Amino acid sequence: MQILLTNDDGIYAPGIAALKHMIQDLGLVTVVAPDVEQSGVGHSITFSHPLRIREVQVNNERIGYGVNGSPADCVKLAIYEVMEKKPDVVISGINMGSNVGIHILYSGTVAAAVEASIMGFPSIAVSFEISDQYTDVQSAARVARGVIERIITHKLPAGSLLNINIPSLPPDQIKGIKITRQFAHDFKETFERRVDPNGKTYYWLIGTNKSVHREEGTDINAINEGYISITPLRYDLTDNHFHKKIEGWDWKGIVS
Amino acid sequence: MQILLTNDDGIYAPGIAALKHMIQDLGLVTVVAPDVEQSGVGHSITFSHPLRIREVQVNNERIGYGVNGSPADCVKLAIYEVMEKKPDVVISGINMGSNVGIHILYSGTVAAAVEASIMGFPSIAVSFEISDQYTDVQSAARVARGVIERIITHKLPAGSLLNINIPSLPPDQIKGIKITRQFAHDFKETFERRVDPNGKTYYWLIGTNKSVHREEGTDINAINEGYISITPLRYDLTDNHFHKKIEGWDWKGIVS
Repeated sequence: MQILLTNDDGIYAPGIAALKHMIQDLGLVTVVAPDVEQSGVGHSITFSHPLRIREVQVNNERIGYGVNGSPADCVKLAIYEVMEKKPDVVISGINMGSNVGIHILYSGTVAAAVEASIMGFPSIAVSFEISDQYTDVQSAARVARGVIERIITHKLPAGSLLNINIPSLPPDQIKGIKITRQFAHDFKETFERRVDPNGKTYYWLIGTNKSVHREEGTDINAINEGYISITPLRYDLTDNHFHKKIEGWDWKGIVS
Repeated sequence: MQILLTNDDGIYAPGIAALKHMIQDLGLVTVVAPDVEQSGVGHSITFSHPLRIREVQVNNERIGYGVNGSPADCVKLAIYEVMEKKPDVVISGINMGSNVGIHILYSGTVAAAVEASIMGFPSIAVSFEISDQYTDVQSAARVARGVIERIITHKLPAGSLLNINIPSLPPDQIKGIKITRQFAHDFKETFERRVDPNGKTYYWLIGTNKSVHREEGTDINAINEGYISITPLRYDLTDNHFHKKIEGWDWKGIVS
Protein backbone atom coordinates (compact mmCIF):
# COMPACT_ATOMS: atom_id res chain seq x y z
CA MET A 1 0.00 0.00 0.00
CA GLN A 2 1.18 3.50 -0.90
CA ILE A 3 0.68 6.10 1.83
CA LEU A 4 1.39 9.82 1.43
CA LEU A 5 2.01 11.68 4.66
CA THR A 6 2.08 15.47 4.95
CA ASN A 7 1.32 18.19 7.51
CA ASP A 8 1.34 21.93 8.07
CA ASP A 9 3.69 22.04 11.06
CA GLY A 10 6.68 21.29 8.81
CA ILE A 11 8.68 18.17 8.04
CA TYR A 12 10.65 18.28 11.32
CA ALA A 13 7.52 18.40 13.52
CA PRO A 14 7.06 15.66 16.14
CA GLY A 15 3.50 14.88 15.01
CA ILE A 16 4.45 13.72 11.54
CA ALA A 17 7.36 11.67 12.90
CA ALA A 18 5.11 9.92 15.42
CA LEU A 19 2.53 9.14 12.77
CA LYS A 20 5.11 7.86 10.30
CA HIS A 21 6.54 5.56 12.95
CA MET A 22 3.08 4.29 13.88
CA ILE A 23 1.93 3.42 10.34
CA GLN A 24 5.13 2.39 8.57
CA ASP A 25 4.24 -1.30 8.62
CA LEU A 26 0.98 -0.62 6.75
CA GLY A 27 2.77 0.10 3.49
CA LEU A 28 5.30 2.36 1.80
CA VAL A 29 5.06 5.73 3.54
CA THR A 30 6.26 8.76 1.55
CA VAL A 31 6.62 11.99 3.53
CA VAL A 32 6.33 15.26 1.60
CA ALA A 33 5.83 18.23 3.89
CA PRO A 34 6.55 21.96 4.10
CA ASP A 35 10.11 23.02 4.96
CA VAL A 36 8.80 25.25 7.71
CA GLU A 37 5.60 25.66 9.71
CA GLN A 38 2.61 26.73 7.61
CA SER A 39 -0.11 27.05 10.22
CA GLY A 40 -3.06 29.19 9.21
CA VAL A 41 -2.22 29.16 5.53
CA GLY A 42 -5.58 27.60 4.67
CA HIS A 43 -5.91 26.19 1.20
CA SER A 44 -3.23 28.44 -0.28
CA ILE A 45 -1.39 27.28 -3.36
CA THR A 46 1.80 28.67 -4.86
CA PHE A 47 2.02 29.94 -8.41
CA SER A 48 3.81 33.26 -7.90
CA HIS A 49 7.14 31.70 -7.01
CA PRO A 50 8.74 28.40 -8.04
CA LEU A 51 8.61 25.37 -5.77
CA ARG A 52 11.57 23.26 -4.82
CA ILE A 53 11.74 19.74 -3.42
CA ARG A 54 14.67 18.69 -1.25
CA GLU A 55 15.46 15.38 0.36
CA VAL A 56 15.49 15.71 4.13
CA GLN A 57 17.69 13.66 6.43
CA VAL A 58 17.62 13.46 10.20
CA ASN A 59 20.47 11.58 11.94
CA ASN A 60 21.63 10.29 8.55
CA GLU A 61 18.21 8.79 7.91
CA ARG A 62 16.13 9.92 4.93
CA ILE A 63 12.82 10.99 6.42
CA GLY A 64 11.17 12.47 3.36
CA TYR A 65 10.96 15.54 1.14
CA GLY A 66 10.70 19.18 2.18
CA VAL A 67 8.90 21.71 -0.02
CA ASN A 68 9.08 25.51 0.15
CA GLY A 69 5.33 25.78 -0.16
CA SER A 70 1.98 25.13 1.46
CA PRO A 71 0.52 21.78 2.55
CA ALA A 72 -1.69 21.77 -0.57
CA ASP A 73 1.41 22.36 -2.72
CA CYS A 74 3.04 19.37 -1.02
CA VAL A 75 0.15 17.09 -1.94
CA LYS A 76 0.18 18.19 -5.57
CA LEU A 77 3.96 17.90 -5.88
CA ALA A 78 4.05 14.55 -4.09
CA ILE A 79 1.48 13.01 -6.39
CA TYR A 80 2.63 14.60 -9.67
CA GLU A 81 6.40 14.60 -9.15
CA VAL A 82 7.63 12.60 -6.15
CA MET A 83 5.71 9.33 -5.81
CA GLU A 84 6.24 6.65 -8.39
CA LYS A 85 2.84 5.14 -7.71
CA LYS A 86 -0.35 6.95 -6.77
CA PRO A 87 -1.23 6.92 -3.05
CA ASP A 88 -3.91 4.61 -1.71
CA VAL A 89 -4.46 7.01 1.15
CA VAL A 90 -3.23 10.50 2.06
CA ILE A 91 -2.79 11.47 5.71
CA SER A 92 -2.24 15.02 6.92
CA GLY A 93 -0.93 15.50 10.46
CA ILE A 94 -0.62 15.01 13.27
CA ASN A 95 -1.22 18.70 13.80
CA MET A 96 -0.33 20.00 17.24
CA GLY A 97 -3.57 21.82 18.04
CA SER A 98 -7.17 21.01 17.23
CA ASN A 99 -8.76 21.94 13.90
CA VAL A 100 -12.44 22.28 14.65
CA GLY A 101 -15.28 24.60 13.71
CA ILE A 102 -14.38 27.43 11.39
CA HIS A 103 -10.69 26.80 12.11
CA ILE A 104 -11.12 24.00 9.57
CA LEU A 105 -11.17 26.73 6.91
CA TYR A 106 -7.91 28.28 8.12
CA SER A 107 -6.12 24.98 8.57
CA GLY A 108 -3.30 23.93 6.29
CA THR A 109 -3.62 20.43 7.77
CA VAL A 110 -7.21 20.07 6.58
CA ALA A 111 -6.44 21.79 3.26
CA ALA A 112 -3.86 19.13 2.44
CA ALA A 113 -6.46 16.41 2.99
CA VAL A 114 -9.00 18.38 0.95
CA GLU A 115 -6.48 18.73 -1.88
CA ALA A 116 -5.94 14.97 -1.90
CA SER A 117 -9.69 14.41 -1.99
CA ILE A 118 -10.07 16.81 -4.93
CA MET A 119 -7.40 14.82 -6.75
CA GLY A 120 -9.43 11.67 -6.11
CA PHE A 121 -7.50 10.07 -3.26
CA PRO A 122 -8.96 8.97 0.10
CA SER A 123 -7.65 11.26 2.81
CA ILE A 124 -7.84 12.20 6.46
CA ALA A 125 -6.60 15.12 8.53
CA VAL A 126 -5.49 14.38 12.08
CA SER A 127 -5.12 16.99 14.82
CA PHE A 128 -4.23 16.63 18.48
CA GLU A 129 -5.57 19.13 20.98
CA ILE A 130 -2.86 21.10 22.77
CA SER A 131 -3.01 21.34 26.55
CA ASP A 132 -0.72 21.54 29.53
CA GLN A 133 -2.26 18.32 30.86
CA TYR A 134 -1.30 15.73 28.32
CA THR A 135 1.05 15.99 25.38
CA ASP A 136 1.87 12.41 24.31
CA VAL A 137 1.42 12.48 20.56
CA GLN A 138 2.04 8.70 20.45
CA SER A 139 -1.45 7.95 21.68
CA ALA A 140 -2.87 10.30 19.06
CA ALA A 141 -0.85 8.46 16.42
CA ARG A 142 -2.36 5.17 17.64
CA VAL A 143 -5.87 6.56 17.19
CA ALA A 144 -4.94 7.85 13.73
CA ARG A 145 -3.76 4.38 12.79
CA GLY A 146 -7.09 2.93 13.86
CA VAL A 147 -8.96 5.38 11.62
CA ILE A 148 -6.63 4.69 8.69
CA GLU A 149 -7.25 0.94 9.03
CA ARG A 150 -11.00 1.59 8.96
CA ILE A 151 -10.98 3.74 5.87
CA ILE A 152 -8.91 1.06 4.15
CA THR A 153 -11.61 -1.48 5.10
CA HIS A 154 -14.71 0.62 4.46
CA LYS A 155 -13.43 2.97 1.71
CA LEU A 156 -14.32 6.66 1.56
CA PRO A 157 -16.83 7.85 -1.04
CA ALA A 158 -15.38 10.16 -3.74
CA GLY A 159 -15.29 13.78 -2.63
CA SER A 160 -15.41 12.98 1.09
CA LEU A 161 -12.65 13.11 3.66
CA LEU A 162 -12.41 12.73 7.41
CA ASN A 163 -11.29 15.39 9.85
CA ILE A 164 -10.09 13.74 13.08
CA ASN A 165 -9.55 15.65 16.31
CA ILE A 166 -8.14 13.90 19.34
CA PRO A 167 -8.56 15.36 22.82
CA SER A 168 -5.51 15.97 24.94
CA LEU A 169 -6.14 13.13 27.38
CA PRO A 170 -4.44 9.88 28.33
CA PRO A 171 -6.00 6.99 26.34
CA ASP A 172 -7.82 5.60 29.39
CA GLN A 173 -9.61 8.92 29.90
CA ILE A 174 -10.83 9.23 26.31
CA LYS A 175 -14.55 8.38 26.36
CA GLY A 176 -14.75 7.03 22.81
CA ILE A 177 -15.46 8.48 19.40
CA LYS A 178 -18.21 10.74 18.12
CA ILE A 179 -19.09 11.23 14.48
CA THR A 180 -19.66 14.95 14.43
CA ARG A 181 -20.47 17.92 12.27
CA GLN A 182 -18.44 21.09 11.90
CA PHE A 183 -19.32 23.71 14.51
CA ALA A 184 -20.42 26.53 12.21
CA HIS A 185 -20.54 29.57 14.47
CA ASP A 186 -17.76 32.08 14.87
CA PHE A 187 -15.25 31.77 17.69
CA LYS A 188 -14.40 34.75 19.86
CA GLU A 189 -11.39 36.63 18.61
CA THR A 190 -9.81 40.02 19.03
CA PHE A 191 -6.84 42.02 17.88
CA GLU A 192 -4.30 43.18 20.41
CA ARG A 193 -3.12 46.64 19.43
CA ARG A 194 0.49 47.51 20.22
CA VAL A 195 2.85 50.38 19.41
CA ASP A 196 6.31 49.62 18.04
CA PRO A 197 9.51 51.48 19.13
CA ASN A 198 8.96 53.86 16.20
CA GLY A 199 5.55 54.86 17.50
CA LYS A 200 3.62 52.97 14.84
CA THR A 201 0.61 50.77 15.60
CA TYR A 202 0.51 47.07 14.83
CA TYR A 203 -1.99 44.30 15.52
CA TRP A 204 -1.80 40.70 16.69
CA LEU A 205 -4.73 38.45 15.94
CA ILE A 206 -5.82 36.53 19.04
CA GLY A 207 -8.06 33.65 18.10
CA THR A 208 -9.77 31.29 20.52
CA ASN A 209 -11.78 28.10 20.55
CA LYS A 210 -14.56 29.85 22.48
CA SER A 211 -17.96 30.83 21.20
CA VAL A 212 -21.16 32.27 22.62
CA HIS A 213 -22.89 29.27 21.06
CA ARG A 214 -22.68 25.65 22.13
CA GLU A 215 -24.08 22.78 20.13
CA GLU A 216 -24.46 19.07 20.69
CA GLY A 217 -23.13 16.91 17.88
CA THR A 218 -20.35 19.28 16.85
CA ASP A 219 -16.60 18.68 16.63
CA ILE A 220 -15.69 21.24 19.31
CA ASN A 221 -18.26 19.82 21.67
CA ALA A 222 -16.95 16.28 21.26
CA ILE A 223 -13.34 17.10 22.13
CA ASN A 224 -14.44 19.36 24.97
CA GLU A 225 -16.30 16.37 26.41
CA GLY A 226 -13.33 14.03 26.02
CA TYR A 227 -14.31 12.23 22.82
CA ILE A 228 -12.37 11.74 19.62
CA SER A 229 -14.19 13.76 16.96
CA ILE A 230 -14.52 12.37 13.44
CA THR A 231 -16.14 14.78 11.00
CA PRO A 232 -16.87 13.81 7.40
CA LEU A 233 -16.11 16.82 5.19
CA ARG A 234 -16.78 17.67 1.56
CA TYR A 235 -15.17 20.36 -0.57
CA ASP A 236 -18.24 21.22 -2.60
CA LEU A 237 -19.30 24.48 -0.91
CA THR A 238 -22.60 24.81 -2.78
CA ASP A 239 -25.44 25.79 -0.47
CA ASN A 240 -28.10 23.56 -2.02
CA HIS A 241 -30.87 24.72 0.32
CA PHE A 242 -30.43 28.34 -0.67
CA HIS A 243 -30.01 27.52 -4.37
CA LYS A 244 -33.72 27.19 -5.15
CA LYS A 245 -34.67 30.28 -3.19
CA ILE A 246 -32.46 32.69 -5.09
CA GLU A 247 -33.68 31.30 -8.38
CA GLY A 248 -36.97 32.95 -7.43
CA TRP A 249 -35.47 36.42 -6.99
CA ASP A 250 -36.20 39.04 -9.63
CA TRP A 251 -33.10 39.01 -11.81
CA LYS A 252 -34.57 41.09 -14.68
CA GLY A 253 -32.32 43.91 -15.85
CA ILE A 254 -29.17 42.54 -14.21
CA VAL A 255 -27.40 42.76 -17.57
CA SER A 256 -28.10 46.16 -19.05
CA MET B 1 -25.75 51.89 4.50
CA GLN B 2 -22.28 50.67 5.47
CA ILE B 3 -20.42 48.74 2.79
CA LEU B 4 -17.06 47.05 3.26
CA LEU B 5 -15.09 46.47 0.08
CA THR B 6 -12.04 44.22 -0.14
CA ASN B 7 -10.27 42.01 -2.68
CA ASP B 8 -7.25 39.78 -3.20
CA ASP B 9 -5.64 41.63 -6.11
CA GLY B 10 -4.51 44.41 -3.75
CA ILE B 11 -5.78 47.89 -2.97
CA TYR B 12 -4.40 49.45 -6.17
CA ALA B 13 -6.12 46.92 -8.47
CA PRO B 14 -8.50 48.25 -11.16
CA GLY B 15 -11.31 45.88 -10.16
CA ILE B 16 -11.77 47.29 -6.67
CA ALA B 17 -11.60 50.86 -7.98
CA ALA B 18 -14.27 50.18 -10.59
CA LEU B 19 -16.54 48.55 -8.04
CA LYS B 20 -16.08 51.35 -5.51
CA HIS B 21 -16.95 53.93 -8.14
CA MET B 22 -20.03 51.96 -9.21
CA ILE B 23 -21.53 51.51 -5.72
CA GLN B 24 -20.47 54.64 -3.86
CA ASP B 25 -23.94 56.20 -3.99
CA LEU B 26 -25.45 53.15 -2.21
CA GLY B 27 -23.87 54.08 1.13
CA LEU B 28 -20.61 54.70 2.91
CA VAL B 29 -18.01 52.48 1.22
CA THR B 30 -14.94 51.56 3.29
CA VAL B 31 -12.10 49.92 1.37
CA VAL B 32 -9.74 47.66 3.36
CA ALA B 33 -7.60 45.51 1.09
CA PRO B 34 -4.19 43.84 0.95
CA ASP B 35 -1.16 46.04 0.23
CA VAL B 36 -0.09 43.68 -2.51
CA GLU B 37 -1.64 40.92 -4.63
CA GLN B 38 -2.69 37.86 -2.61
CA SER B 39 -4.00 35.54 -5.31
CA GLY B 40 -4.12 31.89 -4.34
CA VAL B 41 -3.76 32.52 -0.62
CA GLY B 42 -7.07 30.79 0.09
CA HIS B 43 -8.49 31.33 3.53
CA SER B 44 -5.13 32.06 5.13
CA ILE B 45 -5.01 34.18 8.26
CA THR B 46 -2.03 35.83 9.87
CA PHE B 47 -0.99 35.19 13.44
CA SER B 48 2.74 34.61 13.05
CA HIS B 49 3.57 38.23 12.25
CA PRO B 50 1.86 41.47 13.27
CA LEU B 51 -0.55 43.23 10.95
CA ARG B 52 -0.41 46.91 10.06
CA ILE B 53 -3.04 49.18 8.61
CA ARG B 54 -2.04 52.18 6.53
CA GLU B 55 -4.15 54.84 4.89
CA VAL B 56 -3.75 54.72 1.12
CA GLN B 57 -3.97 57.77 -1.11
CA VAL B 58 -4.04 57.90 -4.90
CA ASN B 59 -3.76 61.34 -6.58
CA ASN B 60 -4.20 63.00 -3.17
CA GLU B 61 -7.48 61.16 -2.66
CA ARG B 62 -7.93 58.78 0.27
CA ILE B 63 -9.04 55.52 -1.31
CA GLY B 64 -8.96 53.24 1.71
CA TYR B 65 -6.72 51.18 3.95
CA GLY B 66 -3.95 48.79 2.98
CA VAL B 67 -3.11 45.78 5.15
CA ASN B 68 0.04 43.61 5.06
CA GLY B 69 -2.05 40.47 5.24
CA SER B 70 -4.53 38.22 3.50
CA PRO B 71 -8.04 39.11 2.31
CA ALA B 72 -9.50 37.31 5.36
CA ASP B 73 -7.21 39.39 7.62
CA CYS B 74 -8.54 42.53 5.92
CA VAL B 75 -12.14 41.60 6.71
CA LYS B 76 -11.35 40.90 10.37
CA LEU B 77 -9.31 44.07 10.80
CA ALA B 78 -11.84 46.20 8.94
CA ILE B 79 -14.72 45.06 11.13
CA TYR B 80 -12.87 44.94 14.47
CA GLU B 81 -10.56 47.94 14.07
CA VAL B 82 -11.29 50.19 11.10
CA MET B 83 -15.05 50.67 10.63
CA GLU B 84 -16.94 52.69 13.20
CA LYS B 85 -20.20 50.90 12.37
CA LYS B 86 -20.65 47.27 11.36
CA PRO B 87 -21.09 46.65 7.63
CA ASP B 88 -24.53 45.97 6.14
CA VAL B 89 -22.84 44.12 3.32
CA VAL B 90 -19.30 42.98 2.50
CA ILE B 91 -18.14 42.80 -1.13
CA SER B 92 -14.95 41.11 -2.26
CA GLY B 93 -13.69 41.90 -5.75
CA ILE B 94 -13.76 42.49 -8.56
CA ASN B 95 -11.18 39.79 -9.05
CA MET B 96 -9.49 39.75 -12.44
CA GLY B 97 -9.98 36.10 -13.29
CA SER B 98 -12.85 33.72 -12.63
CA ASN B 99 -13.17 31.83 -9.34
CA VAL B 100 -15.12 28.72 -10.20
CA GLY B 101 -15.03 25.04 -9.31
CA ILE B 102 -12.31 23.99 -6.92
CA HIS B 103 -10.55 27.31 -7.53
CA ILE B 104 -13.12 28.63 -5.05
CA LEU B 105 -11.07 26.90 -2.35
CA TYR B 106 -7.81 28.56 -3.42
CA SER B 107 -9.33 32.00 -3.86
CA GLY B 108 -8.53 34.85 -1.52
CA THR B 109 -11.46 36.73 -3.06
CA VAL B 110 -13.95 34.08 -2.01
CA ALA B 111 -12.23 33.59 1.37
CA ALA B 112 -12.81 37.25 2.24
CA ALA B 113 -16.54 36.84 1.55
CA VAL B 114 -16.58 33.59 3.54
CA GLU B 115 -14.86 35.33 6.45
CA ALA B 116 -17.52 38.05 6.45
CA SER B 117 -20.23 35.42 6.40
CA ILE B 118 -18.65 33.59 9.36
CA MET B 119 -18.68 36.89 11.24
CA GLY B 120 -22.40 37.22 10.47
CA PHE B 121 -22.39 39.76 7.65
CA PRO B 122 -24.05 39.33 4.23
CA SER B 123 -21.35 39.02 1.61
CA ILE B 124 -20.60 38.37 -2.03
CA ALA B 125 -17.47 37.60 -4.00
CA VAL B 126 -17.25 38.99 -7.54
CA SER B 127 -14.87 37.74 -10.21
CA PHE B 128 -14.49 38.71 -13.84
CA GLU B 129 -13.23 36.19 -16.36
CA ILE B 130 -9.97 37.16 -18.03
CA SER B 131 -9.75 36.95 -21.79
CA ASP B 132 -8.13 38.71 -24.71
CA GLN B 133 -11.57 39.45 -26.13
CA TYR B 134 -13.13 41.76 -23.61
CA THR B 135 -11.60 43.42 -20.60
CA ASP B 136 -13.97 46.23 -19.55
CA VAL B 137 -14.31 45.77 -15.81
CA GLN B 138 -16.94 48.56 -15.75
CA SER B 139 -19.62 46.27 -17.10
CA ALA B 140 -18.69 43.65 -14.48
CA ALA B 141 -19.02 46.35 -11.81
CA ARG B 142 -22.49 47.16 -13.12
CA VAL B 143 -23.53 43.52 -12.77
CA ALA B 144 -22.08 43.41 -9.26
CA ARG B 145 -24.12 46.45 -8.33
CA GLY B 146 -27.26 44.70 -9.53
CA VAL B 147 -26.53 41.70 -7.33
CA ILE B 148 -25.77 43.91 -4.32
CA GLU B 149 -29.11 45.70 -4.74
CA ARG B 150 -30.88 42.35 -4.79
CA ILE B 151 -29.25 41.00 -1.66
CA ILE B 152 -30.19 44.23 0.09
CA THR B 153 -33.81 43.65 -0.98
CA HIS B 154 -34.04 39.89 -0.43
CA LYS B 155 -31.49 39.42 2.38
CA LEU B 156 -29.10 36.49 2.57
CA PRO B 157 -29.73 33.72 5.11
CA ALA B 158 -27.12 33.44 7.88
CA GLY B 159 -24.15 31.35 6.83
CA SER B 160 -24.75 31.79 3.10
CA LEU B 161 -22.90 33.94 0.63
CA LEU B 162 -22.93 34.41 -3.12
CA ASN B 163 -20.06 33.74 -5.49
CA ILE B 164 -20.53 35.75 -8.69
CA ASN B 165 -18.59 35.07 -11.87
CA ILE B 166 -19.01 37.30 -14.89
CA PRO B 167 -18.00 36.12 -18.35
CA SER B 168 -15.60 38.23 -20.36
CA LEU B 169 -18.15 39.48 -22.87
CA PRO B 170 -19.68 42.82 -23.82
CA PRO B 171 -22.98 43.31 -21.91
CA ASP B 172 -25.11 42.78 -25.04
CA GLN B 173 -23.54 39.35 -25.55
CA ILE B 174 -24.14 38.12 -22.00
CA LYS B 175 -27.06 35.69 -22.19
CA GLY B 176 -28.38 36.30 -18.67
CA ILE B 177 -27.78 34.76 -15.28
CA LYS B 178 -27.69 31.21 -14.05
CA ILE B 179 -27.95 30.14 -10.44
CA THR B 180 -25.33 27.42 -10.33
CA ARG B 181 -23.53 24.95 -8.15
CA GLN B 182 -19.80 24.61 -7.67
CA PHE B 183 -18.15 22.37 -10.25
CA ALA B 184 -16.66 19.75 -7.94
CA HIS B 185 -14.23 17.84 -10.16
CA ASP B 186 -10.55 18.55 -10.44
CA PHE B 187 -9.18 20.76 -13.18
CA LYS B 188 -6.23 19.66 -15.27
CA GLU B 189 -2.95 20.89 -13.87
CA THR B 190 0.72 20.09 -14.20
CA PHE B 191 4.08 21.21 -12.92
CA GLU B 192 6.61 22.58 -15.33
CA ARG B 193 10.04 21.41 -14.28
CA ARG B 194 12.94 23.77 -14.92
CA VAL B 195 16.60 23.90 -13.98
CA ASP B 196 18.07 27.08 -12.51
CA PRO B 197 21.51 28.50 -13.47
CA ASN B 198 23.00 26.56 -10.53
CA GLY B 199 21.74 23.27 -11.91
CA LYS B 200 18.97 22.86 -9.35
CA THR B 201 15.45 21.81 -10.25
CA TYR B 202 12.42 23.95 -9.53
CA TYR B 203 8.74 23.65 -10.37
CA TRP B 204 6.03 26.02 -11.58
CA LEU B 205 2.43 25.03 -10.96
CA ILE B 206 0.36 25.39 -14.12
CA GLY B 207 -3.33 25.34 -13.30
CA THR B 208 -6.15 25.46 -15.82
CA ASN B 209 -9.90 25.81 -15.97
CA LYS B 210 -10.13 22.59 -17.96
CA SER B 211 -11.46 19.25 -16.78
CA VAL B 212 -12.19 15.88 -18.27
CA HIS B 213 -15.69 16.29 -16.84
CA ARG B 214 -18.41 18.67 -17.96
CA GLU B 215 -21.61 19.26 -16.04
CA GLU B 216 -24.78 21.22 -16.67
CA GLY B 217 -25.75 23.54 -13.85
CA THR B 218 -22.23 24.29 -12.70
CA ASP B 219 -20.44 27.63 -12.38
CA ILE B 220 -17.76 26.85 -14.97
CA ASN B 221 -20.38 25.69 -17.46
CA ALA B 222 -22.42 28.89 -17.04
CA ILE B 223 -19.56 31.28 -17.79
CA ASN B 224 -18.33 29.08 -20.64
CA GLU B 225 -21.79 29.43 -22.19
CA GLY B 226 -21.85 33.21 -21.73
CA TYR B 227 -23.98 33.46 -18.59
CA ILE B 228 -23.29 35.25 -15.33
CA SER B 229 -22.88 32.53 -12.70
CA ILE B 230 -24.31 33.07 -9.22
CA THR B 231 -23.46 30.27 -6.80
CA PRO B 232 -24.77 30.23 -3.24
CA LEU B 233 -22.01 28.98 -0.96
CA ARG B 234 -21.85 27.85 2.66
CA TYR B 235 -18.81 27.48 4.89
CA ASP B 236 -20.05 24.47 6.84
CA LEU B 237 -18.06 21.70 5.18
CA THR B 238 -19.85 18.83 6.94
CA ASP B 239 -20.72 16.03 4.56
CA ASN B 240 -24.14 15.24 5.98
CA HIS B 241 -24.83 12.37 3.59
CA PHE B 242 -21.73 10.52 4.65
CA HIS B 243 -22.25 11.29 8.35
CA LYS B 244 -24.79 8.53 8.98
CA LYS B 245 -22.85 5.94 7.04
CA ILE B 246 -19.65 6.18 9.05
CA GLU B 247 -21.60 6.02 12.28
CA GLY B 248 -22.26 2.41 11.25
CA TRP B 249 -18.58 1.50 10.91
CA ASP B 250 -17.02 -0.70 13.57
CA TRP B 251 -15.25 1.74 15.86
CA LYS B 252 -14.59 -0.73 18.70
CA GLY B 253 -11.06 -0.69 19.98
CA ILE B 254 -10.13 2.66 18.43
CA VAL B 255 -8.99 3.88 21.84
CA SER B 256 -6.74 1.28 23.33
